[in-house]
Parts: sequence; structure tokens; C-alpha cells
Amino acid sequence: MNRAAAAFTRLPADIDVLVLFDDQYVHYYTGFVFTPTERPMAVVITRDGERVLFVPRLELEHAGQLSDADRVVSYPEYPGERHPILLLLDFLEQQGLAGGVIGVDFDGYPPVMGYRPFPLSDHARVRQVSALLDLQMAVKSPAELTLVRESIRWGDHAHRLLQEYTRPGLRENEVVARACREATEAMNAELGTGDRNWNRWIHGALAIYRGQIGPASALPHALANNAMFEAGQTLVTGAGADVFGYLSELERTMFIGEPTAEQRHFFDHMMRMQDISFATIRAGVPASAVDIAVREYIDEHNLWPHWRHHVGHSLGQRIHESPFLDLGDDTELQAGMVFSIEPGLYVPGLGGFRHSDTILVTEDGCEVMTFYPRELEELVIPV
Amino acid sequence: MNRAAAAFTRLPADIDVLVLFDDQYVHYYTGFVFTPTERPMAVVITRDGERVLFVPRLELEHAGQLSDADRVVSYPEYPGERHPILLLLDFLEQQGLAGGVIGVDFDGYPPVMGYRPFPLSDHARVRQVSALLDLQMAVKSPAELTLVRESIRWGDHAHRLLQEYTRPGLRENEVVARACREATEAMNAELGTGDRNWNRWIHGALAIYRGQIGPASALPHALANNAMFEAGQTLVTGAGADVFGYLSELERTMFIGEPTAEQRHFFDHMMRMQDISFATIRAGVPASAVDIAVREYIDEHNLWPHWRHHVGHSLGQRIHESPFLDLGDDTELQAGMVFSIEPGLYVPGLGGFRHSDTILVTEDGCEVMTFYPRELEELVIPV
Repeated sequence: MNRAAAAFTRLPADIDVLVLFDDQYVHYYTGFVFTPTERPMAVVITRDGERVLFVPRLELEHAGQLSDADRVVSYPEYPGERHPILLLLDFLEQQGLAGGVIGVDFDGYPPVMGYRPFPLSDHARVRQVSALLDLQMAVKSPAELTLVRESIRWGDHAHRLLQEYTRPGLRENEVVARACREATEAMNAELGTGDRNWNRWIHGALAIYRGQIGPASALPHALANNAMFEAGQTLVTGAGADVFGYLSELERTMFIGEPTAEQRHFFDHMMRMQDISFATIRAGVPASAVDIAVREYIDEHNLWPHWRHHVGHSLGQRIHESPFLDLGDDTELQAGMVFSIEPGLYVPGLGGFRHSDTILVTEDGCEVMTFYPRELEELVIPV
Repeated sequence: MNRAAAAFTRLPADIDVLVLFDDQYVHYYTGFVFTPTERPMAVVITRDGERVLFVPRLELEHAGQLSDADRVVSYPEYPGERHPILLLLDFLEQQGLAGGVIGVDFDGYPPVMGYRPFPLSDHARVRQVSALLDLQMAVKSPAELTLVRESIRWGDHAHRLLQEYTRPGLRENEVVARACREATEAMNAELGTGDRNWNRWIHGALAIYRGQIGPASALPHALANNAMFEAGQTLVTGAGADVFGYLSELERTMFIGEPTAEQRHFFDHMMRMQDISFATIRAGVPASAVDIAVREYIDEHNLWPHWRHHVGHSLGQRIHESPFLDLGDDTELQAGMVFSIEPGLYVPGLGGFRHSDTILVTEDGCEVMTFYPRELEELVIPV
């Protein structure tokens, strides 16, 4: 049974057809990776697992050549003479699929690059089913896990280069560019992945700082700032690789020169928070339990001023996926789910303290799939 | 009057507050550039032009430091104990803004990285107003035009390097990486833009192929494929630069070695289609008129098998913006609007034929702002 047919085993019986707009579902069910624009795209899936890509004329040949959809149908253009969503409804009508309840991820195409919302529910009966589809995506098959493990291997390689090339007096952009270029070339030579973009989130193997250098590392989602590396800085990295569409996540807190007592203090707390996360995870516990266990540690050690975010998220073809290791997410963990484990502490003026490892949920615990050194002594850049 | 207050001059009188979720509106009204994740973000704008950023705890300091919002309020996390959209409604309630009609770009936060739709309209009266806001964004101020012109200058520089470095026997990635690196370094040295990401679409100055090399250039939105350059190929490029958040667009059709009669044939038709577009544009005509004029030429010359998309789109801080130069868009063109002009022809097996120039609509016509050579003889790579 293909993924598309398997999706229906999770859905209510009155849903005859799925219409999914998010490019990530298109990727998951048809293998098609593309640049979302103002032109709506969707995959239409019927109960027998047939997958029809509905694309603008612009993408017809592209979708035909690079997806494994059973069929590709196209509409002329957006906004066009007749709205593409009405043309999609015409198509469903012709197929005898417009009468019942349409399972959707989203009530129309999302607002991308100036596209204006046009709710499907104004013209058809729809029901939001992405929670059920996300559960299918979250449990990885053995083949998917093989790709995630290969991604981890190349993210690790890129990170080793990043750590090696980072030296006081150099700047973010040159160090990151060198590590990414060399790691990507090595990966392409080994895997032959280089002839196509398999994922729209990242391309090749990469290890980056995203601006988390020195005090700016206290901003969890800082953006690149080309700072100069200097002795005394706390650094937070990010690494991964696109292996035939699958990703992974590796992040490390590093120091330039011997860390101070204050840097050690927060690093040690962060390590304990990650240890607690690893120890809490196993099939059958709710996702929220992991976040709650870390929150208890934060309570106990008065670390709330340094808390900024939940413990982690699922990932696979998308860089963040549901479920989330968050207080408010009661999804039951299942063997085969893959998560980032990245509880962090952030200290304005000093820096950020966050490791992220990619783990696999197992029946009796978790396997930490990433294998990059994580102890403080291994993460000090010489000065 | 700031942009935020000016927005209300376009809105119906019964709207007291705007709640905008699209990160592009956040950027436009507050200057904040960030990585959208599963955690909802919004800007709340009141009639007097006050702009409050509503962000997850994760982004509180970041938004405080790098936006010029009047205030930043944060919620803990997504999904969290109470849904962030309910917390946003609580905030509006506290401010006395929940009673009337809320102007929105979108009925809730869009689906990003596993976020599940949660319509605002289930809890408040909302009205979609993005068509009106898009008109504000589309007409550029003199300051904005200065930035677009500077972006054009650096996109031009990057493209000159790309053309110079492209030679048979080399591959896409190395040529593109070299041109982008050198152009970005030159731009950073000149403008000092290198210390921050000012735009989430592109970073630095760039000139790329996106895989449009040889027969693959017949796919208008091909993705990078690291093809080798060879004599006889048709190439389609793309260039631009992020100058303090503003973008531009420059694309050229080039040939490796002397083009054949067939390549010249489609190149010449494409040039005429671009000329017709330039000649049709002026303040007061509808956007659709430009597309219709090009379609008449296509009719006349039996080029429909090679048509794939409309003539162009507005741009500014976002790489595609509304309005669109499309049959179905009757927006009246106004002086100060900026568009890409990029009618294309695509021939399976042979390649794509598309120039894109960035133009400014004026009272009596259009100014072609990009100044890169466009004649065939100037676009042949020596073999």
C-alpha cells in the first residue's frame, strides 16, 4: 500500500478525497519538490491511493518529470480568467469527487507571495485532517530512517569542518561557506545527490551559526550577522544535510577559549536538561511529558529567566514537523518517531546554551542518533 | 504619518485594528525580519499607527532589538497551555480592541512547519483587507526606489561575474558560488549591509541559474541541478541583491557558443514580447492590459505551445508581490509601482527564453531600471 492509500486508513470513512495544499504534503505523497509561489498547487488523493498533482501550467513538465504522481493536471495561471481554486473544484466535479466531504490540510491555498486567501469551504464541504496525516508522517519507515541516519553522518562531517575552521579573527560568512562547500562536495562525491534539489529547506550538507556568536547567541533564532570570532565567545551551531529529501538536526554550544565559571554553569544545566529529555522519552508517553520533566528541572534550579522555548520537534522531510515536545501537545509517542532534543538556556549579554540531537523513539526509550561529541572539553575552540 | 497609520486611510471606517500574520506585512510595518516557524507571530496595528508585535517568548529580545515596533508582547510557546491565538484575542480584549471588526490579511496564522490552522473568525469578527494593504506596498516611496535601484546595481554586478565565470566544462554550483561570494563581498564592503539578514528571501548579492541550463532551462522554475556547462546550451539566469531589505530582479537568456537559427528565433520573439510589455505600461492602464498585449502577439505568431506564465509581478521587500501583470488582475497601474517584466517562451528539448527586467511605472510610460545588456550578441558565452 502506498503512502497515499495508507493515509486513508487513518481518516473517517466519509472522506472520499484529500486535497492537500501545503508543499510539504505534496513532497511527502508525490516526491515533488518545487518553489511555492502565488500560483496554487495541490495534491488530490483518492481512496485507492491515486495521486493527482494540480499545478499551474508553469510547473506541468517539471511535475511530470520530477514527481511520481500518477497524473498531473494543470490550470493556466493565477489569478487568471477563472480562479484556480474554482478550476480545482471543476476537476473534482468531473471526477465525481465534489459531492462528499473533502479532507484538507488547510482551507484553501496558503498566502504565499501575494496570493489572496480563497476559502475552499465557500464552495465545498471540507474537513481539516492534517492532525491525522501528521501522525503518519511522524512515524518513519526503515527506509526513511536510513536516509535520516545518512543525513546525520553528513551533518556531522560539516560540523567537524565548522569547528576546525572557526578561529578568532575570522568572520562567520567565510568559515560557514568553507565548511558547507567542502562538506557538500564530499557528500555529493559519495552519494551523487548533487544533481537535484531534493528539499526546499536546505541544499547539500551544512553547518552554520545563523548569527549565534557571542552575546547574539542569546537570541535562539538570530539570523546570520557575519560577526568576527573572538576569544571568550559562546557559540551555538546548527548542522544537517539533505539526503534525497530527508534531514536531521545537530546543534552544539561551543566556546572560544577556556570558558568562564558562568559559561560552565549554564552549559552544565543545559546538559542536565538534555539528559532528562533523553531519559523521559519512550513509546507510550505523551509528547508533553518530556517538556514537563525539563520544566521541573527549570523550576528546581530557578532557571526560568533563561527559558525561551519547548524541548523539540519532530522532523523528517520538513525541518520542523508536528508533534512538538511541548507542554500543550499530548500526542502519544510511538516507536519510529524522530525528534530534535534541544532544551536551551539563554543569558542576555553572555550567550545561548543549546545542544540539539536527533533521536529515535523506541519501545523502551530512545536512541540518540547523532553522535557528535557533546562534552564541554570537546567543544572548546583553541585561541 | 507612518506606514501603519497610512494603511488606515485605505481601510473602511469600521475597522479599528489590523492583525496581520504574514511575515511580509510584519517586515513592511515594523522592519522585523525573522524565521517563521510553527509559533504564530502577528503585528497588531491601531488606527493611530501604533504597532505592537505579538511574538513567542523565543523572539522577544530579537524583536525588541531588531524591529522598530512601538511595543513587543510575547506569549510562552506553541501549542502551549493556552493557544497563542486565544492569547492574542485576550490581548486585544485588554486593549479594548476585540469588540469591532478586525482587519486581517488572513484568517489566522498560516500553516508553517506543522502549525495547525486555528481560524480567528471562530472567536472574532474579521474582514480580509490584504488587497488594500497590497496597494499601499505596491506604490514605492522615493526612499524605497533608492533601495531598489541600489539592489539593481549589485544584482547587475553579480550577473556580470556570473557571465564572466560561466565556461564550458565547469559546473553550476562552483560558478554560482564564486559569482555570489565575490559580489556579496564587494557589496558588503561598499554598503556595510553584511552584518545582518535584512530579508528572508535572499542574502547578499546573487546571480544564479536555478538549474536552468540546457534543456532544463525549459522548466521556468527548475531547481539547482549542478549541471555541467556545454557548448550549445541555452541558459536562463536570475540576479538580485538584498539592500536593507529591498530586492530587484534581473534575468537573462544566454547561449554557450553561437546560437542556432532555432535559438535565435525564440530569443527574438521573447525580445518582442518584452518590448510590447514595456510599450504598454503606464499609469492608468490595468495590469491585465500588459498580459493581454503579449497574448495578442502570442496568438499572432502561434507561440501558445511555448507559453507558460503571465508577464510579471510587483516586487519590493518580497520577491513576488501583488498586483500581477496577468489577464485576471484589473488593478490600475500607478506611478511608483515596480514590476518584473518577464514574458517567457519555453521549448522542450531546447530551452527557455526569458529576460526579466525591473521597471518603474511612470505617468506616461515606464522606466526600465535594470541596465544589463539585453541583446543577443552581448549574451553569448565564448567556447
